[in-house]
Amino acid sequence: MTAPRSAAAIESWAEEADVVVVGFGAAGSAAAYEAAAAGADVLVLERAGAAGGAAAMSDGFIYLGGGTPEQRQAGFDDSVDNMKAFLKAACGPSPDEAKIDLYCERSLEHREWLVARGIRFLGTVIPTANGTSPVDGEGLMFTGGENAYPFDELATPAPRGHVVQGGKPGGSVLMQTLSAAAIAAGVRTSYDTRADALVVDDDDHVVGLVAARYGEEIAIRARTGVVLAAGGFINDPAMVEQFAPAVHATELRLGTEGDDGRSIRMAQAVGARVKRMDAIECALPFNAPRSLVSGIIVNRLGQRFVNEDTYMGRVGQTALVHQSGEAYLIVDEEHYAPNWLGIAAAWVCETVEDLESEIGLPSGSLRTTLDYFNEHAARGEDPLFHKRPPALTPLTPPLAGLDLRASSFIYAPFTLGGLHTRVDGAVLDLDGEPIPGLYAAGRTTSGVAAQGYASGLSLGDSTFFGRLAGVSAAGGKP
Amino acid sequence: MTAPRSAAAIESWAEEADVVVVGFGAAGSAAAYEAAAAGADVLVLERAGAAGGAAAMSDGFIYLGGGTPEQRQAGFDDSVDNMKAFLKAACGPSPDEAKIDLYCERSLEHREWLVARGIRFLGTVIPTANGTSPVDGEGLMFTGGENAYPFDELATPAPRGHVVQGGKPGGSVLMQTLSAAAIAAGVRTSYDTRADALVVDDDDHVVGLVAARYGEEIAIRARTGVVLAAGGFINDPAMVEQFAPAVHATELRLGTEGDDGRSIRMAQAVGARVKRMDAIECALPFNAPRSLVSGIIVNRLGQRFVNEDTYMGRVGQTALVHQSGEAYLIVDEEHYAPNWLGIAAAWVCETVEDLESEIGLPSGSLRTTLDYFNEHAARGEDPLFHKRPPALTPLTPPLAGLDLRASSFIYAPFTLGGLHTRVDGAVLDLDGEPIPGLYAAGRTTSGVAAQGYASGLSLGDSTFFGRLAGVSAAGGKP
Repeated sequence: MTAPRSAAAIESWAEEADVVVVGFGAAGSAAAYEAAAAGADVLVLERAGAAGGAAAMSDGFIYLGGGTPEQRQAGFDDSVDNMKAFLKAACGPSPDEAKIDLYCERSLEHREWLVARGIRFLGTVIPTANGTSPVDGEGLMFTGGENAYPFDELATPAPRGHVVQGGKPGGSVLMQTLSAAAIAAGVRTSYDTRADALVVDDDDHVVGLVAARYGEEIAIRARTGVVLAAGGFINDPAMVEQFAPAVHATELRLGTEGDDGRSIRMAQAVGARVKRMDAIECALPFNAPRSLVSGIIVNRLGQRFVNEDTYMGRVGQTALVHQSGEAYLIVDEEHYAPNWLGIAAAWVCETVEDLESEIGLPSGSLRTTLDYFNEHAARGEDPLFHKRPPALTPLTPPLAGLDLRASSFIYAPFTLGGLHTRVDGAVLDLDGEPIPGLYAAGRTTSGVAAQGYASGLSLGDSTFFGRLAGVSAAGGKP
Repeated sequence: MTAPRSAAAIESWAEEADVVVVGFGAAGSAAAYEAAAAGADVLVLERAGAAGGAAAMSDGFIYLGGGTPEQRQAGFDDSVDNMKAFLKAACGPSPDEAKIDLYCERSLEHREWLVARGIRFLGTVIPTANGTSPVDGEGLMFTGGENAYPFDELATPAPRGHVVQGGKPGGSVLMQTLSAAAIAAGVRTSYDTRADALVVDDDDHVVGLVAARYGEEIAIRARTGVVLAAGGFINDPAMVEQFAPAVHATELRLGTEGDDGRSIRMAQAVGARVKRMDAIECALPFNAPRSLVSGIIVNRLGQRFVNEDTYMGRVGQTALVHQSGEAYLIVDEEHYAPNWLGIAAAWVCETVEDLESEIGLPSGSLRTTLDYFNEHAARGEDPLFHKRPPALTPLTPPLAGLDLRASSFIYAPFTLGGLHTRVDGAVLDLDGEPIPGLYAAGRTTSGVAAQGYASGLSLGDSTFFGRLAGVSAAGGKP
């Protein structure tokens, strides 16, 4: 039950701290560290048996830019304005300008903070890598379609996916490092403790929470603030159905069991507002090996709908939200290879007509699309989607068809919507005013990527805005 | 301020009733009538100076079926199951099965209720009418694409848009009739009274509300229940940006000033859950005169994306949500006529290539689309979207292009998302439990059309579920 409890009804507090942080993932560890560094007594609650959260499962990209040492070492120019221009285009429509501005302006400082905690980055780009998960020695990647249309015309392309070094997956290294840093800073922890509801006093200030610790309900007092950093809601079927029903087509859900939206509902129950609850990101890892990008992706009508050489998360998001998760990749023999996930072509045909018929596309639709594509690709043009050479090349039968339908391929969605917070982490109520004592960060909130996405934005905005929320909850001004 | 007030802090109640209904539109008048008929003392608050709400501005379609006298008179077979089959297909993905089931099963009964209140219907279909607003003597219309693909294959086509007779617009007649019926049943009214926040007692029961009456704040006690029936949120820019940002492209917003989501926020502030807040309906009245439907609608890439002969609300919704409100109607000389809104072609060209270039479509894209369309239309086929004859016909230059972009044409959006209610009108909290004393209906809620739409569904589900909410609020079992 997420309904708030009245402080007057709490008989005894089992635990007490200045700042209570819910969730020991990327946002929670950053919040806890900064609150402790600001002098607060901090207690982190984690419903699992260890720190990590969804961040620990990730590849460990952190989206940083504005001219980091790694970017300069790899020979890329970037600036704060350039990074802003990309993110405002990529994280729209209706990008969160305030969050993007601050995130970009402090990106170099945030990198320094991560390095000071023990995170190591590398200024190497490996062009021969397959483009999905980082390989050994790979330090920087284009992770959001920065070098694809239309973004390459709106901002100077620069890779900003900084891979956490020191082991795989990088997210695990990140979380070991950040959670250890928080503990070294004096943060106390309580594992197997699931926050269930907030406690409010007579003035509607959040003064603590009730939690289930090994199944037993306890009350925990927070003297200065509660920070909700408990992930998103991809694993709550009811919330998904209510807010992001496009996800229904997929089997896989990217997140931990804890990503059940409980913290979002706890905050809503004390009057918090939410934002962009429909927004999802969805990786569609079709594009490795990279030669497959030379193929064309068509919808169930045989029409192209995206430039195949953009970020695979953008392809997945577009396919799932606007094409009902119905897509096919058409590749010729020269560029065909089995997908890195081991998924082979579902159809191989000598002629376009046979392939069209075997897939079940409308009569003549693939023929029409391919003729148009090939005619222009031969001239180095893609009038519809501006795929760039060398991926732009005519396709010659025999052709292979990879089944990219959500029912057949891997779609890895997670939610981007959540609590509406100020940049300092304050959770806003339905009238747009801060709820006293309540802060949030990470995927419990709507963040830098209010819509659209680039890999590394969640680790990036969770750690950055987690820090700010931690300082705020400790009573400081971030 | 929508934050809830504590009953203990209310010094005096300016008004008191068993049931307090917020909003005197379609849902509110039905709720008020039924609560009064159940024996309750009922007070309706209306922030405008008279009854009506957005319903009074509408054409007065009420979506009814299952074999109404009007359907039979006009020679159409319909059944409850047939109506369900259509609505579950048209109001998806994730249709609200419980609401659709009950709505269809009681459609004949609801028609009787409306007739008993004084509403008159007519069993006439006028095929020569232009298909947008009803003309004199027109009683029944296809209002949701029932006779277009794919719905004509999923259910037997039957018109269900029952036009309220007796004047224009029919919505005004409806509201005069229903509000008069409520008043005749003993309902008391307070105009120029805007509900601002709910009042809850120590057990979190809703026991009243505070409102601004002619600008003065007053408290109003509800002995058995409050019914929120105050419309949607299309006229609250902040909520639109947070939940339904696709609307941003349009200038027009279909609703009254009162459709500012205040009642939704008031309920959220006491822990109510919302549902499908991203869902919008959007009329795009391009298809009158009907001959224009013979044209093809293309997106900014010159691709078709919808069958032009389906419901104009489906065309508008698809264009706005999935095509960023960027669309063009291409018609040949034989079928061209100025749109009934007086909007003429923006471009007229002798050749396809000229039109493509003047519109600014990618080189060769319209040529490709038109060749494919014409080749199949000549054989009576539309493999992509299954437009039906006689609207399906090859287009021969010279061609006219109508600018259907949201920046140029009329898009009339309104919101479909809102409070998550049970079929009996109980407002659910974040854990899925009813909030004691709180009920809602109409566009303040997510209704029969959780997504997708047919004209007449809002008047239909507002009046039907308004009735049930009224009975529930009076303490009865609907």
